[in-house]
Amino acid sequence: MLDAPPTPPIPRPPAVVELERLWGEIRRLEAVEALLSWDQETMMPARATAARSEQIATLAAIVHDRLTSDELQRAIEEAEREASGPEERAAAAEARRRTGRALAIPRRLAGELAAAAALGTDAWQRARADGGFQSFRPALDRLIGLKREQATLLSGPDAALYDALLDEYEPGARAADLDRLFAELEPELVALTRELPAEPGVAKETGAARYPLASQRDAGARVVRAIGFDEQRGRVDSSAHPFCIGLGRDDVRITWRADPDDFRPGLLGFLHEAGHALYEQGLPAHLADSPVGGAASLGIHESQSRLWENQVGRSRGFCRWLWSWLPELLPAVPFSDAEALWRHLHELRRGLIRVDADEVTYNLHVLARYRLEKALLSAELTVGDLPEAWRVEYHRLLGLTPPSDRLGVLQDIHWAIGLIGYFPTYTLGNLAASQMFEAAVAELGNLDAAFERGDFAPVLSWLRERVHSVGATLPPREVVVRATGRPLEAAAFLRHVERLVEGHARTGAERP
Amino acid sequence: MLDAPPTPPIPRPPAVVELERLWGEIRRLEAVEALLSWDQETMMPARATAARSEQIATLAAIVHDRLTSDELQRAIEEAEREASGPEERAAAAEARRRTGRALAIPRRLAGELAAAAALGTDAWQRARADGGFQSFRPALDRLIGLKREQATLLSGPDAALYDALLDEYEPGARAADLDRLFAELEPELVALTRELPAEPGVAKETGAARYPLASQRDAGARVVRAIGFDEQRGRVDSSAHPFCIGLGRDDVRITWRADPDDFRPGLLGFLHEAGHALYEQGLPAHLADSPVGGAASLGIHESQSRLWENQVGRSRGFCRWLWSWLPELLPAVPFSDAEALWRHLHELRRGLIRVDADEVTYNLHVLARYRLEKALLSAELTVGDLPEAWRVEYHRLLGLTPPSDRLGVLQDIHWAIGLIGYFPTYTLGNLAASQMFEAAVAELGNLDAAFERGDFAPVLSWLRERVHSVGATLPPREVVVRATGRPLEAAAFLRHVERLVEGHARTGAERP
Repeated sequence: MLDAPPTPPIPRPPAVVELERLWGEIRRLEAVEALLSWDQETMMPARATAARSEQIATLAAIVHDRLTSDELQRAIEEAEREASGPEERAAAAEARRRTGRALAIPRRLAGELAAAAALGTDAWQRARADGGFQSFRPALDRLIGLKREQATLLSGPDAALYDALLDEYEPGARAADLDRLFAELEPELVALTRELPAEPGVAKETGAARYPLASQRDAGARVVRAIGFDEQRGRVDSSAHPFCIGLGRDDVRITWRADPDDFRPGLLGFLHEAGHALYEQGLPAHLADSPVGGAASLGIHESQSRLWENQVGRSRGFCRWLWSWLPELLPAVPFSDAEALWRHLHELRRGLIRVDADEVTYNLHVLARYRLEKALLSAELTVGDLPEAWRVEYHRLLGLTPPSDRLGVLQDIHWAIGLIGYFPTYTLGNLAASQMFEAAVAELGNLDAAFERGDFAPVLSWLRERVHSVGATLPPREVVVRATGRPLEAAAFLRHVERLVEGHARTGAERP
Repeated sequence: MLDAPPTPPIPRPPAVVELERLWGEIRRLEAVEALLSWDQETMMPARATAARSEQIATLAAIVHDRLTSDELQRAIEEAEREASGPEERAAAAEARRRTGRALAIPRRLAGELAAAAALGTDAWQRARADGGFQSFRPALDRLIGLKREQATLLSGPDAALYDALLDEYEPGARAADLDRLFAELEPELVALTRELPAEPGVAKETGAARYPLASQRDAGARVVRAIGFDEQRGRVDSSAHPFCIGLGRDDVRITWRADPDDFRPGLLGFLHEAGHALYEQGLPAHLADSPVGGAASLGIHESQSRLWENQVGRSRGFCRWLWSWLPELLPAVPFSDAEALWRHLHELRRGLIRVDADEVTYNLHVLARYRLEKALLSAELTVGDLPEAWRVEYHRLLGLTPPSDRLGVLQDIHWAIGLIGYFPTYTLGNLAASQMFEAAVAELGNLDAAFERGDFAPVLSWLRERVHSVGATLPPREVVVRATGRPLEAAAFLRHVERLVEGHARTGAERP
């Protein structure tokens, strides 16, 4: 049989081509902004901070001008008329959404928000240094006021203010959906948490460095290579706070930080950031210039980092693979077999600090913040009453009361830089990670044996096809449905943490 | 006595302030372009090349739009009217010069030049790989044609084409000045060169790596710190080709490359790039946003790198300082005392390769290129006849005939990327370095004793005051006059190389 003749390329409407031309420029400028940030965190000389801020502000103003230009609005209108397939319609709609958000905010307010975030960072750092919330209060007051103004402009008079901010990070998500998910989570998680030992949240093992950083780095590099991070299209560096940043799918950079006394944060951090990076490296190449060529949302992004960190990296199969080579690199690992390593990676404790939280308690930390930031935005709660409200919420959810604001309301930078509506995306990611992994296992069968061989290709291929290659051509809620066959629920996640608590209770006595 | 009241700041004309506002944005965008290039050479993942080219093209188009905007032209006109001091007048004049060059080139030609440079790089690399000039010829033909078109647009019908291109790198310089300087240099240098042994130009010591790269790096870092490179406002990395790039005076980055069998290229490369960096770090802070806040020219830039490399780094005092600690770091250094080290740093040989050339022969390599590129531009020489003309020129100047184009006309990338008029700035820098150092010694006294103690502050202070802090407020020729009291001449440089040849002849027999 002869080969079929090659399918001729389908000509795309000129308006769609024009929209991609304009949007491609914006995406390239955003890639440059990403490089400026990456460099600042990893490479930049200490005294270049002021100059860098000006460079970033200059770029941001150019991006804003392009997003709000008449030329782009005309291109979107024509693309809306001429778009023929679902991808083209999604691109026009996403361009409309992004530019609508930019157009709704006057330049004056954008400038005030940026300035308030800079002052907020400063005040937050000083408040943390001297332990007092009071010195942070005026800056936060100002920020909440500006965010309320921003939300009002974005939402119109009737819509929910919180939804308007949430949409920035999770397009189309609504507080009502979050309320429903948290209502499923809260009683169960609170009950599970009751059983867990409390820890002060600042304790660290001390003594000589047991895990040399170079060896930890080698271990992390081996892990990220094994799970499929493409080093020809990315790089790994160290920074004070680990992050992943994409300058486009061919240049995805992750950073890590290690604790010389505990190899877990470094190792799991590698997995977490590499999970983000795999998503970026798997975004659809043919949509590189399109409004829907990026990640679907922060929640979907977090689902990828969490899936690799928790569902893969903390699985029994992964622990057996790790056990086969890790003790050679890090001879000080304090346990006798792969099962003990599994327990070591699953220390479950009620603590005060979100970033140190385990899988069971993590979403309660998010819930506290979600409730408080909603109340701040709607003015049901004043900034002055926030520290006490924080203590009440932590006592209710985690049975703990922070002894200081540093271990309480001052622990995260998010509010200080105006990120309201951001925290819930962590929980959306946690839930989606569980639900996606369950769906993958249902299709591919149990993956522990493959993991034990260091074979992660099946799960990566599944994610590439189901999630990564979709980009933002679907809204995040539809991405979950496409991947798992169901809307996002708390059930898979709850099954996951129940198994953890059970496994832990069963073997906890053998803890090294 | 009471303190005098502080002098009130002199109010600057609003038009001058407005010009700096617009120009500051351009300088910030240029700093971002510099970061993109630096990252590409040092950090960028291999497969990000295509995306990076697009990012750079996007930025370049924005800078071009700003440079050619009506808004900027109006600001320059008003600044020309309102400028009150020499600095303000120089700023307006420099803005006029830069924007005039940008306005003279239609967007179509700018795009064709960029594309031809990309193709030229490709063709040059392929020609080097298979050794044949013929495969490079069409690309170079195209580039020369476009450069001729560019030069015609820049110079107007009557002026010299070559001067129009030279002005890009050396504002205000003319071929007639270069001809005069080379006429002084040529007979003397050809005579000195006759005495030198010939080397094939590709010989390298082989065998085990004698100088571990980490130790070479430590040595280089010690040197650049000692001469005053501010690591809070810069950094050092490795790259295939050493360079210095400034993102503003607070962020100046140098790179290095080392030869495991020969510590000299790494050490002298450190000094060379740090010399460039000291200049950038010493540019006037109050003119950071001004058209005259940058370097005066490439020639002045090269004078700074060469001064630290050759006048300081190859001095007897410096060799004695180096001798006091270098053998500890690099125990394999093959000589017995500081004088032998001095000789080791002054190996004088006729070779075929410019970047390996010593101080005596270097400017003859430049002269050959200068003659040939002038002849190409004026069409006295065709691209087809270039390889033979190269061989004739090298035989006349250096008494050598390259056995291949790779060791001849294909050795430099400059022409392949459209840099015509660039090579002579190397010679201007070499001459100015000698003349400036002579002037510094005339004022400060012999510096060898200070160098021997590792004290380089006097010479740095002198350069800061005489050269660095001037920025581009004076044309490069005036910078030389201000620093040395005389226009640029060949005399100081010739005295310098005569001393070298003499010192070498006197002690050459003791070579290790």
